[in-house]
Amino acid sequence: MVNKIFLIMAVVGVPLSIVGSIFHFSTILMFVIYCLTIIALAGFMGRATESLAVIAGERIGGLLNATFGNAVELIISIFSLKAGLVGVVLASLTGSVLGNLLLVAGLSFFIGGLKYKRQEFNVYDARHNSALLVFAVIVAFVIPEVFTQGMVQGDKLALSSGISIILIILYLAALIFKLVTHRGVYQPKTNVVSPEHEEEAEWGIGKALAILLIATLAVAYVSEKLVHTFAEVAETFGWSELFIGIIIVAIVGNAAEHASAIMMAFKNKMGVAVEIAVGSTLQVAMFVAPVLVLISLFFETSMPLVFTMPELISMVTAVLLTIAISNDGDTNWFEGATLLAAYFIMGIGFYLL
Amino acid sequence: MVNKIFLIMAVVGVPLSIVGSIFHFSTILMFVIYCLTIIALAGFMGRATESLAVIAGERIGGLLNATFGNAVELIISIFSLKAGLVGVVLASLTGSVLGNLLLVAGLSFFIGGLKYKRQEFNVYDARHNSALLVFAVIVAFVIPEVFTQGMVQGDKLALSSGISIILIILYLAALIFKLVTHRGVYQPKTNVVSPEHEEEAEWGIGKALAILLIATLAVAYVSEKLVHTFAEVAETFGWSELFIGIIIVAIVGNAAEHASAIMMAFKNKMGVAVEIAVGSTLQVAMFVAPVLVLISLFFETSMPLVFTMPELISMVTAVLLTIAISNDGDTNWFEGATLLAAYFIMGIGFYLL
Amino acid sequence: MVNKIFLIMAVVGVPLSIVGSIFHFSTILMFVIYCLTIIALAGFMGRATESLAVIAGERIGGLLNATFGNAVELIISIFSLKAGLVGVVLASLTGSVLGNLLLVAGLSFFIGGLKYKRQEFNVYDARHNSALLVFAVIVAFVIPEVFTQGMVQGDKLALSSGISIILIILYLAALIFKLVTHRGVYQPKTNVVSPEHEEEAEWGIGKALAILLIATLAVAYVSEKLVHTFAEVAETFGWSELFIGIIIVAIVGNAAEHASAIMMAFKNKMGVAVEIAVGSTLQVAMFVAPVLVLISLFFETSMPLVFTMPELISMVTAVLLTIAISNDGDTNWFEGATLLAAYFIMGIGFYLL
Repeated sequence: MVNKIFLIMAVVGVPLSIVGSIFHFSTILMFVIYCLTIIALAGFMGRATESLAVIAGERIGGLLNATFGNAVELIISIFSLKAGLVGVVLASLTGSVLGNLLLVAGLSFFIGGLKYKRQEFNVYDARHNSALLVFAVIVAFVIPEVFTQGMVQGDKLALSSGISIILIILYLAALIFKLVTHRGVYQPKTNVVSPEHEEEAEWGIGKALAILLIATLAVAYVSEKLVHTFAEVAETFGWSELFIGIIIVAIVGNAAEHASAIMMAFKNKMGVAVEIAVGSTLQVAMFVAPVLVLISLFFETSMPLVFTMPELISMVTAVLLTIAISNDGDTNWFEGATLLAAYFIMGIGFYLL
Repeated sequence: MVNKIFLIMAVVGVPLSIVGSIFHFSTILMFVIYCLTIIALAGFMGRATESLAVIAGERIGGLLNATFGNAVELIISIFSLKAGLVGVVLASLTGSVLGNLLLVAGLSFFIGGLKYKRQEFNVYDARHNSALLVFAVIVAFVIPEVFTQGMVQGDKLALSSGISIILIILYLAALIFKLVTHRGVYQPKTNVVSPEHEEEAEWGIGKALAILLIATLAVAYVSEKLVHTFAEVAETFGWSELFIGIIIVAIVGNAAEHASAIMMAFKNKMGVAVEIAVGSTLQVAMFVAPVLVLISLFFETSMPLVFTMPELISMVTAVLLTIAISNDGDTNWFEGATLLAAYFIMGIGFYLL
Repeated sequence: MVNKIFLIMAVVGVPLSIVGSIFHFSTILMFVIYCLTIIALAGFMGRATESLAVIAGERIGGLLNATFGNAVELIISIFSLKAGLVGVVLASLTGSVLGNLLLVAGLSFFIGGLKYKRQEFNVYDARHNSALLVFAVIVAFVIPEVFTQGMVQGDKLALSSGISIILIILYLAALIFKLVTHRGVYQPKTNVVSPEHEEEAEWGIGKALAILLIATLAVAYVSEKLVHTFAEVAETFGWSELFIGIIIVAIVGNAAEHASAIMMAFKNKMGVAVEIAVGSTLQVAMFVAPVLVLISLFFETSMPLVFTMPELISMVTAVLLTIAISNDGDTNWFEGATLLAAYFIMGIGFYLL
């Protein structure tokens, strides 16, 4: 049913996006249309990637998911960078991290916990992911913040680029570790993860590739339009561009993942739900963010890996809370409520900034 | 024997407080009398609450303990707020957190550890509490600090109020989780906690309610007097009001709890000792502090939930140390010594501020 | 073979150091000679201490190792303090902490992990050490940073001295805990640690004492020379004195430990490798650093325990990363790679500062 709604939204949304921009519809209306269209298209891209992943087998499939999983966010961000909106990009990266760690995981734990008293997931994976969260957010994001105070722009970019390259290398190393050298080494006897095994590919390779290509092009087109509505939307609603980036762009860019994580929690596949939430965070922090830093070097306005203090502290505290909560490999509704409460606190903070 | 001493202290202390304030005894003398009287009265309030809790059964009893456990501190703080001493209140909240996490837990671990080589407590509870400590101190206290820099007072209070409401809601949710939906779910086979089961109520319901009412009124009366001695005591001893709040008020307000936690450790009931220390911290951070923020909105000087940097960093590092130490569900004298050493370091720091 | 090379380096290096300083060889050349000579002499001191430790038995031996283990670093630092180079000393303490936690542990995990899929170590020791790392770095180093902002120099030194005394007392308490009251209490059935038991002393007590004395004197002589080359080396290569302290002095002062930790990892004695890396960090933070603070009170320029922000944040994040990684008592190549990646990130940062 969701798929049908997405089909209608995409089939109606894309032409409407073109027509609306030609006839200069109200910006607020277009902002809403663009957002909904991207959410629908992101659903198609996710299904196409999933089909290709099933066909390609676990290793290549894992790589595909790890690379295309945040493609929509990458595309929106590239157009934002091109428009010089460095602050919006950093904010939307922050929003993705907070959204995945607190909102997605929180909703999964909470809704899953209403049905099941205790839900378990692989504690080894949780610790492996915890260490990477500390590395990416607490080391790689905090260090430039502290070190670049008083640095000239050139050194800022040099430090940011160096860190970005190291992040990407470690991200690739993590894939090799997980898919090649230590595949299955840390799995418990009763295999709870990797649902790909059970499923068949929804689409054949040709159809999947075609849909992926068309949806990606459409997302790119609509994203470019979307980016240019930010300023007016911000003014109309009295929001800061920061708030748009952190809350709106992050939710639009990750809507598909949000939905599937909660579905998994409801089916008591908490391992997959956590993998989506935390895995997606790591993808943003260790792949999307550094790739954007490196791409931005070719644009007019380069983006150093330097967040604002509220953004940085929000991400750091979100990581510490996630670790404190997920360290026992066990979830319940109250742990979900705690994560959601943290998300609301930060939401109020960013709204008032 | 302690009970007899407290009885004498209360019976002598309350009239002396009245007489002394009429005949204008030396402020320093009165400060000491007020402090000792409050400690004695707090003992009575604790026993009355305990009796009511036993009579009311575990659920309502837990709720009573969770609400009245820090009543003395709440009362002193309300009178301080009325007198406009916002800084003293924030300092005494900090002092309660540090006192419970480092001094009470430290003494319990150390003294218990001199008698027993290893003492164990429920590791599930420890992790549940760890997550709440991270939520309350590292998220809910750190976020306003960082976000309010450069905010106008109105937005500061809006953010503080929003966070306070969320803290209180999550505190209530934690009670529901513990007393209703997940009661006993995370208990190990051999039940080490909940000593209320074994005990009979010391007093009947009528006597307990009467004592609770009288002692509370007396605490309120003496607290109001106490608050007005701070300025002169600070000047006489060369202490800052911060130091009075952090060390003196916190110790006076929590003396009864300190005593019983150490008793429990000595009886090898480390689970109860930890529950008192950490549970009391959570009560202060998630209930007393936000309630005071909301009450202060009706006073002349409102109190935003914004601590000074030394207060905040002390609480954050105390939480991280507590988690690092209590994460294994096992204590010994050295872990106690480490907590005490951290308390002394912060004590020197606040003395020199 | 390493021993032979070290013998040649020492026998050639010491006379060359004397000759070179008389005939005013190039400062850069002398810098290199001094560094290599100290590395070689440190190797001899390590072997002599090890022999004495084996002869003296586990308790006194542990004490000897704990006291003389960082003797070289202590000597270089005292001469640096005498020369007024407070910034270099703080930087080299930082460098030792980062070098041990990230570089030594990282290389051990990585190289050991290339040979073995999973390597295990005692998880109780890891947690004991984690708590001490949090205490020393996150409490004892962070508190003075935050509290001394706006303090007069006298109070800064008072706070630093108080904290230093507490650190040394807790360090001694940790030795008592480990060697006396709780010796073997937290050991698993299969004893993986304490390789001293298996080994015989390499040298007799007389020879060991003589070598220790001579090598120490030689290190002192060469260190004094080395310290005076820093300014010119920094200028020649465009390095800051901070970078020299953090990278060069830390590597020279810890080269012997680095080598033996990696050897142990390669022999699958990961427990010993971790003990060297983390134990050495704790020695630096809880013994060398506070001793230097107290010694500096007798010098012209006193050294408060106040690091620069980049130094402090690097150490704090390194501790958090170490805890996140070592908390499971299990290592692999990827965990090593993560630690090394963090070291490189900080290295780039300090280079660009």
